[in-house]
Amino acid sequence: MNEAAFLAYLRHLPLHAGARGLRDDAAVLGDLVLTHDLLVEGVHYLPDDPAEDVAWKLVAVNLSDLAAKGAVPEGVLLGYPLAGDEAWDSSFLAGLDAALAAFACPLIGGDTVKAPPGVPRTLSLTALGRSPHAPARNGAQAGDLLYVTGTIGDGGAGLEVARTGEGPATLLARYRRPTPRLEEGQALASGVHAMMDVSDGLLIDATRMAEASGLGVTIDLAALPLSADYQAVRGGDRAARLAAATAGDDYELLFAAPPGPLPLAATCLGAFSEGAGLTLHDAGTPLPLPDRLGFEHGA
Amino acid sequence: MNEAAFLAYLRHLPLHAGARGLRDDAAVLGDLVLTHDLLVEGVHYLPDDPAEDVAWKLVAVNLSDLAAKGAVPEGVLLGYPLAGDEAWDSSFLAGLDAALAAFACPLIGGDTVKAPPGVPRTLSLTALGRSPHAPARNGAQAGDLLYVTGTIGDGGAGLEVARTGEGPATLLARYRRPTPRLEEGQALASGVHAMMDVSDGLLIDATRMAEASGLGVTIDLAALPLSADYQAVRGGDRAARLAAATAGDDYELLFAAPPGPLPLAATCLGAFSEGAGLTLHDAGTPLPLPDRLGFEHGA
Repeated sequence: MNEAAFLAYLRHLPLHAGARGLRDDAAVLGDLVLTHDLLVEGVHYLPDDPAEDVAWKLVAVNLSDLAAKGAVPEGVLLGYPLAGDEAWDSSFLAGLDAALAAFACPLIGGDTVKAPPGVPRTLSLTALGRSPHAPARNGAQAGDLLYVTGTIGDGGAGLEVARTGEGPATLLARYRRPTPRLEEGQALASGVHAMMDVSDGLLIDATRMAEASGLGVTIDLAALPLSADYQAVRGGDRAARLAAATAGDDYELLFAAPPGPLPLAATCLGAFSEGAGLTLHDAGTPLPLPDRLGFEHGA
Repeated sequence: MNEAAFLAYLRHLPLHAGARGLRDDAAVLGDLVLTHDLLVEGVHYLPDDPAEDVAWKLVAVNLSDLAAKGAVPEGVLLGYPLAGDEAWDSSFLAGLDAALAAFACPLIGGDTVKAPPGVPRTLSLTALGRSPHAPARNGAQAGDLLYVTGTIGDGGAGLEVARTGEGPATLLARYRRPTPRLEEGQALASGVHAMMDVSDGLLIDATRMAEASGLGVTIDLAALPLSADYQAVRGGDRAARLAAATAGDDYELLFAAPPGPLPLAATCLGAFSEGAGLTLHDAGTPLPLPDRLGFEHGA
């Protein structure tokens, strides 16, 4: 069963109102925001990624979902497999310590299990936060502008650095130690119509926001914010921008907001309109959609 | 690293006050109770256990932790590996549906991940509940009596039925489809001094409650409540009672309460006193402690 079929079945089960139909990054129960994300060795991280960085990433990807709801983290619950690798465990704990300290997020609880050695690890985390007004993924309105924080493509380029061992350490850090945009999310939450984090790729995530909102979205690839490091490695031509827009692991915030001032710097990439689907331009030139808009789970 | 060493390290990390020092079955944040338990194929369930039953058990073991805090379940978040086995996925979903309906507990959210096929599954669940007064594991007082709900040993005997294919279906059901004692927990919570569920074995769990409370505990093995099914298969002699008291998977509630009336039927097994450790009797005869008091994670 692929993810879409599995989720379709799950939606027939008794759902909590706060589940938002399982169509959002996090569940929202009053002011409580809850998310639960797994990392699987060989799927979400490379088997030779340092355990310290894997721990950091496990925390960061979950807190990124909280950031998209404008939440202040309250704590995390960890699910950890003990596979008899002392060095890995110690390194993981050091990374966990660093991430929890960096994001001022304490440990609430969790579970350790004995895991068969030699089997790819599955790591789980549940993060809990509080947000007075958590924006949904499906709240974009026709006429809203589409914005993104920070720069796009660095995570994907960093994965390439990890794979090849060549390239700037700054990009590698963007892949291995992403920063959840917690303060940005908190600043934006009350003013945006929809918000989510960019985890699977900008184009696929923007398309999901438009679909959830029953709208179409137009993106101008020329507006894509690329870092100097990214451009030094990949250049800034159309292929480079398309690669950045379809790579995952950015953990920036993507949001729909009405025209007008924002509480922080962000890049406007396009706009939502009546209709459906993604329309892509490059500085006025219409572009055909690439075969792959981003990472699709279970595809 | 074994579980004890890993937990000792975790206790040096920034902990939420609600984590209760990572020494309890669940975290308690105001009236909110949170628990996160994993099941690993080949460790917590047999590879040929039906997926429907595995789903049930995943829900039940987490809700059992809520029961020990007297909580009413509010919902669960599921972490599920999609490994390309359509029949297993469908069966799992049917069992999840049945368990959520049986315990009136909706789905709040979660995550699916692509998992390498052929690798033992790791399933994770986070359960959320509400309890106006969640008892701790460490609140037993000298002079309290030790009680347990239901019967003990059926889960362990049921595991044997699953392994051998021989024995009563009722015992198999106790192993594969345990019932979290939610109503019992809610009825008991305000009157007990300490409560936990029996998951790893009665003797080890009672010893943990005594240790956490800074007390000793005396148990009379003759008082152990055995089911008719258990006795039909294993008999009721000392060896049978010792086997029942050291088997896991019971998911009954173990609690410390002052002498006096209880709001429900439960079996008194012994008492807490100043001192330390477990003292075992059998109808007045002192017994040496068995080598193994129950299941120790990572041991």
